[in-house]
Amino acid sequence: MMVEANCVRFNSLLLDNGATLAPVDVAYETYGELNAQRNNAILILHAFSGDAHAAGISHDGGKPGWWDNCIGPGKAFDTSRYFIICSNILGGCRGTTGPPSLNPATGCPYAMSFPVITIADMVRLQTMLIDWFGIERLLAVSGGSMGGMQALEWAVAYPERVVSAIPIACTTRHSAQQIAFNEVGRQAIMADPDWNNGDYYGSKPPARGLAVARMIGHITYMSDDSMREKFGRRLRGKQTFGFDFDVDFEVESYLRYRGSEFVNRFDANSYLYITKAMDYFDLSNRQGSLATAFAATQARFLVISFSSDWLYPSYQSQEIVRALRTRNRDVAYVELPSNYGHDAFLVDVAEQTDLIRGFLASTFDKVQ
Amino acid sequence: MMVEANCVRFNSLLLDNGATLAPVDVAYETYGELNAQRNNAILILHAFSGDAHAAGISHDGGKPGWWDNCIGPGKAFDTSRYFIICSNILGGCRGTTGPPSLNPATGCPYAMSFPVITIADMVRLQTMLIDWFGIERLLAVSGGSMGGMQALEWAVAYPERVVSAIPIACTTRHSAQQIAFNEVGRQAIMADPDWNNGDYYGSKPPARGLAVARMIGHITYMSDDSMREKFGRRLRGKQTFGFDFDVDFEVESYLRYRGSEFVNRFDANSYLYITKAMDYFDLSNRQGSLATAFAATQARFLVISFSSDWLYPSYQSQEIVRALRTRNRDVAYVELPSNYGHDAFLVDVAEQTDLIRGFLASTFDKVQ
Repeated sequence: MMVEANCVRFNSLLLDNGATLAPVDVAYETYGELNAQRNNAILILHAFSGDAHAAGISHDGGKPGWWDNCIGPGKAFDTSRYFIICSNILGGCRGTTGPPSLNPATGCPYAMSFPVITIADMVRLQTMLIDWFGIERLLAVSGGSMGGMQALEWAVAYPERVVSAIPIACTTRHSAQQIAFNEVGRQAIMADPDWNNGDYYGSKPPARGLAVARMIGHITYMSDDSMREKFGRRLRGKQTFGFDFDVDFEVESYLRYRGSEFVNRFDANSYLYITKAMDYFDLSNRQGSLATAFAATQARFLVISFSSDWLYPSYQSQEIVRALRTRNRDVAYVELPSNYGHDAFLVDVAEQTDLIRGFLASTFDKVQ
Repeated sequence: MMVEANCVRFNSLLLDNGATLAPVDVAYETYGELNAQRNNAILILHAFSGDAHAAGISHDGGKPGWWDNCIGPGKAFDTSRYFIICSNILGGCRGTTGPPSLNPATGCPYAMSFPVITIADMVRLQTMLIDWFGIERLLAVSGGSMGGMQALEWAVAYPERVVSAIPIACTTRHSAQQIAFNEVGRQAIMADPDWNNGDYYGSKPPARGLAVARMIGHITYMSDDSMREKFGRRLRGKQTFGFDFDVDFEVESYLRYRGSEFVNRFDANSYLYITKAMDYFDLSNRQGSLATAFAATQARFLVISFSSDWLYPSYQSQEIVRALRTRNRDVAYVELPSNYGHDAFLVDVAEQTDLIRGFLASTFDKVQ
């Protein structure tokens, strides 16, 4: 399945902080066909560093999508039955308007003059995309990590537009530890002199700071166990320690590679804005309590977490389930056993596929 | 108890990597009195960022020692019964020879020409200090974190000189995850242009990189729970989000403060060398297996870990206990319940005090 990135431009978007962004581009991809009743559409929401290219092979570059193992004929999100949409988030750097985009008022990139955005802003922009498709109700919204936060935001803020929601490995609000990891990443970027208060477009980007931020991320995405299995204490291309500060261990080599590779595909200012949006997200703060926030939801929920995920631990998914059940909402919860840590929703997808496939089939039956 | 830092100079030290360091200074403090039989001496081994000032109030600065809650009359390490010694580690920056020290061959600081050192090198230097005191056998060696690794090294490498060992919240070898956290800290420092390949003495130190490294450390020293209790999602000096990249959350303010404060008391090159020594440490590699390495030990062991410590998880302490028991060594193990994460051995010391006091008393009885 070769896929092409598309883009649609909207006149303006009102943001939570009071500012208006105009115009706003949204990059998206679709897979499968929208049926005549327009009731088989599923919106896939990507995580922090993802993009609109969720599935298939891209025309430019030939890269498989980030959730290609879950989206396609016969897969969890079955493109022979459903119409799948994935768009790059607001504030991103992969086609949707974000800090690296040109500010029409100045003709220069927004950089740090880009307004601070929220998860709710991202979702508000997604509703405009769904309107543009002429879709009233989504059969499902789903994503992992920050994608799961967006799915929750959809269900809470647009209850009549969401038949079902599948938030995976996520939370209704970041803990102090999650904020702390994000903050250290931001500090690493802002500590790089090449960041230059965000004005680095057209010159050297803050590659070293961004790489350090990404390395921290990668540690949190894996589990102690999966790192042991993948690297252990194996040395990289040597029999004994080098007694220097070059790479000794495989895990060092992996982190350095991941860090430097990230710099080629991601924007440092987008890193700042998107992590900030995650940290601000707090559904329980919305109407006094999480249960109150969930009271208006109409969706069925399938909540999934992973046993070894210590970045978004299962207790955070269980909080979602508890609050939904307090309001007698329709919710299924599964903690899947996996050693892959937070990465599990991307790489350890066999059981997740069965769960999602069954849940979507029964949901689709209800709307037929 | 006002205490004074002392320093002793040794002619030379042969290192694991084959180099010889000459001369070598060791900064140390002592508390209590060495008895006539010279059998009441306890060597306290400090963690990564510690120093010789373990207890009492320093003459200069008036600061209490890093383990002042555990060392003193009636405390875990009772100075009315025992003679306590604590020295700054080799490679440090608090009086013992390390990268910031002057290389007599050049008259300039060693910086990155300092040889890469190991935990065994640190301990070898400590044996010279103990010789200098005229002490043949230590009643106990004890420390937490990297201090615990040194205690294990003492027991394995100098079995006839150690009556007992109390390794706390430590491991016989770093996991891939522990190496990864250290490597990201090193990369943060080396990414700072002010690091300048280590040649920053007399000019601007790599303050931003070192601060980022320290922030990462502080996240790993606390637990998810203790961060929630201490900070939660509380905002710092504001009622609502600032919608900017200044401090929003208390936890951000804490990390920034801890990071910048660290820069005033610690050397960035020492950070590199000491973390490398930790990563190289691998007792199980010594003689084929951990059990074989422990076979020659003569000490009694008290091994302590903390339930919420995810940086040095209890399973690592349990590996020590298992290997010691395989060789029928005398070992007691306690996992203490605590919410304080890795910091527990420094801050949550009530039960730890009872354990250590009892263990030392019975050990001292045996040598009388």
